[in-house]
Amino acid sequence: MTERISSVTTVDVRFPTSRHRDGSDAMNPFPDYSAAYLVLRTTSGAEGHGLVFTVGRGTEIQVAAVRSLAPMVVGQPVDELVADPGALARRLVGDSQIRWLGPAKGVVHMAAGGLVNAVWDLAARRAGKPLWKLLADLTPEQIVAQVDFHYLRDALTEGEALALLRRAEPGRAQRERLLRAEGYPAYTTTPGWLGYDDEKLARLCAEAVADGYRLIKLKVGGNLADDVRRMGIARRAVGPGVRIAVDANQIWGVPEAIRWMGELAEFDPYWIEEPTSPDDVLGHAAVRKALAPVRVATGEHVHNAVMFKQLLQADAVDVVQIDACRVAGVNENLAILLLAARFGVPVCPHAGGVGLCELVQHLAMFDLVAVSGSTEDRAIEYVDHLHEHFVDPARVRGGRYLAPTAPGMSAEIHAASLADHRYPDGPRWATTPAAAGTASA
Amino acid sequence: MTERISSVTTVDVRFPTSRHRDGSDAMNPFPDYSAAYLVLRTTSGAEGHGLVFTVGRGTEIQVAAVRSLAPMVVGQPVDELVADPGALARRLVGDSQIRWLGPAKGVVHMAAGGLVNAVWDLAARRAGKPLWKLLADLTPEQIVAQVDFHYLRDALTEGEALALLRRAEPGRAQRERLLRAEGYPAYTTTPGWLGYDDEKLARLCAEAVADGYRLIKLKVGGNLADDVRRMGIARRAVGPGVRIAVDANQIWGVPEAIRWMGELAEFDPYWIEEPTSPDDVLGHAAVRKALAPVRVATGEHVHNAVMFKQLLQADAVDVVQIDACRVAGVNENLAILLLAARFGVPVCPHAGGVGLCELVQHLAMFDLVAVSGSTEDRAIEYVDHLHEHFVDPARVRGGRYLAPTAPGMSAEIHAASLADHRYPDGPRWATTPAAAGTASA
Repeated sequence: MTERISSVTTVDVRFPTSRHRDGSDAMNPFPDYSAAYLVLRTTSGAEGHGLVFTVGRGTEIQVAAVRSLAPMVVGQPVDELVADPGALARRLVGDSQIRWLGPAKGVVHMAAGGLVNAVWDLAARRAGKPLWKLLADLTPEQIVAQVDFHYLRDALTEGEALALLRRAEPGRAQRERLLRAEGYPAYTTTPGWLGYDDEKLARLCAEAVADGYRLIKLKVGGNLADDVRRMGIARRAVGPGVRIAVDANQIWGVPEAIRWMGELAEFDPYWIEEPTSPDDVLGHAAVRKALAPVRVATGEHVHNAVMFKQLLQADAVDVVQIDACRVAGVNENLAILLLAARFGVPVCPHAGGVGLCELVQHLAMFDLVAVSGSTEDRAIEYVDHLHEHFVDPARVRGGRYLAPTAPGMSAEIHAASLADHRYPDGPRWATTPAAAGTASA
Repeated sequence: MTERISSVTTVDVRFPTSRHRDGSDAMNPFPDYSAAYLVLRTTSGAEGHGLVFTVGRGTEIQVAAVRSLAPMVVGQPVDELVADPGALARRLVGDSQIRWLGPAKGVVHMAAGGLVNAVWDLAARRAGKPLWKLLADLTPEQIVAQVDFHYLRDALTEGEALALLRRAEPGRAQRERLLRAEGYPAYTTTPGWLGYDDEKLARLCAEAVADGYRLIKLKVGGNLADDVRRMGIARRAVGPGVRIAVDANQIWGVPEAIRWMGELAEFDPYWIEEPTSPDDVLGHAAVRKALAPVRVATGEHVHNAVMFKQLLQADAVDVVQIDACRVAGVNENLAILLLAARFGVPVCPHAGGVGLCELVQHLAMFDLVAVSGSTEDRAIEYVDHLHEHFVDPARVRGGRYLAPTAPGMSAEIHAASLADHRYPDGPRWATTPAAAGTASA
């Protein structure tokens, strides 16, 4: 009998992170890191896990979107799905009625991404490989076939993608050995949340350097005097040789971003992340021009490959920050990695949250082995919380991510964690009020 | 006792339009025009009506989003809400947790728009005025106070907006008289759906001209030979003096749009609408440059004012097509009207669907009286179906929209229509299968 997808189950799972202000930034003072978590099951009992990261209220909308798309996956033959997840991605993103709600953006796009990632997780488990290795074993032709070039050809054609993948082929085996031996560079955002006091900031900065990090990140944009003081503390704590990136989480308009960052220039910020609306390609280009040599980084809220294409075409970014859960899954991230390589811009993935480190590390490691071929000026974000809930947690040692070895995309959450943090009926929420805010789910 | 919002009720309402292929285009062959319909009720028994237009599957996600945002409206004092709907719009769009699902895009943004529009409907009913008149009676200062300039100041400041509104003030009364007497130009898309055969196309084109239209629109992008033949039929039917716009509904990549439209140039297309992804600002600019003097139009899927800002900054559009339900309601559309006026680009609203004509006419008429002060090269789209379901339907006579006179935003649907078309349990759906497609709700 043909093995088919027999069910898609979804859970609204929320972690009460707002109580310690882990994850607090200028736009998001009290996040409760959450996920619309989903499991595909097959008629043979195999599983594929996926999730869409969220920050509390509204997770129920994301769950509703996954449920609405699920009928496009249930009943599909598994051999066909795992042989060509790109075909599923096209169907999910292109559904002629649901696409009105995007197209290719917001909760319907992220729901598609959750399902596509779960299919890749299933594919990698079946192959007995971690996802990065499954991808790195594909031929250039197979990789190109997984990408939808429809809206991208004015910047990147199939032929150009093929050429750059072929150029990277000879070094694959050597880079894979190096990756397994030495891991992939990480940077840490743990010291820099806005809700932390000065003492905690200084201590965590010093610890980060002692732990081997060469790049740390601070949240900015709440109050200018505070930012100047905190940047001074951080710079003194890490010394001149360690890079300090800053992250405004979209708080500024364009002129404001340029003025504010001018006041922080003396502390040698390495990049300014999300200086303004993630939709403002031309705004990012203006900020970049005004602030050079400070780099401009964005991506965690850049909703699809068409937006990344323009950020690159407009010379608007120095650093492409892919996110495992924002776009329509692995396939759209392949497109973004290829675009970044075509424009010669390094990729430093966004992570943290719930499961973002676990998922996105696979994409960066694939990029190293088979696309860009380099870790120069590249690092994956790392935040040290909530990993204990994962069956195959991200492992960072000496400031470097170790290459995952377990089959899959590392997305699976322990059943006990899901049961405890299920919203609103799990035991952790039965006794915990939701975060401060003006809406309730 | 202070009057407060006592409830928000939402209905998933769907019309089986796919059976006659009304509304069929290159991207959307079988739409079932639908809405997440909502009603605010106050403790005094007053009502405000709003809706988010959708095209079938996925409407349940849109309904879920409205329900998740509704607690931010329930309990609010009505006097404060109607005096400053902009404050509500900022809270809805800015919620620090829900904004992760956008920000400012997709179903959460449209849900905010539905609620904001319903508050404006309530405000206009209380004032005893149609919405266009309520808006046109605001002072320039009051209008500017309703707009969020945060991400717009690099293109339009409060001072610049105020200046252009003041310049339009002296002519308001005269233009209002003219509007009441003569209405506002309409254009029709009724002849041009892709699913119609040649005979029906020719007949409907001739009828449109006989009805007084000076601009009609054809869907293109399915098949080039068909498009060439259909454009020829339409041009012969309407003669050289009537404008024919064409609409590709995002079907092409950038190079393809330029090639395809080159083949239609002999028929003198007036504008090409949605030649490619609505997110592709730079792509629209490239298409416009290549195809001039054919105009480029877009907007029904442009998800917020930041995107419109860039389309204008990049010289990417000749025609701004606002949509009443895509962005965060009247307030964000005020921003877009001001941006268009600042850049001197005419606004030709997108309409059709369910209720889009009813709602958006108010914005165009306000623009005429108080912002642009002109109907030159401007027209509101009109499609002649589903109006019978509205209590205060759009009225088009001799190719012109008549100015609404009933208080409100004309959003209210007859109770019997809602009951009949409720999905999936209304009588119209109990006996009707949903449209062809790969997902089911």
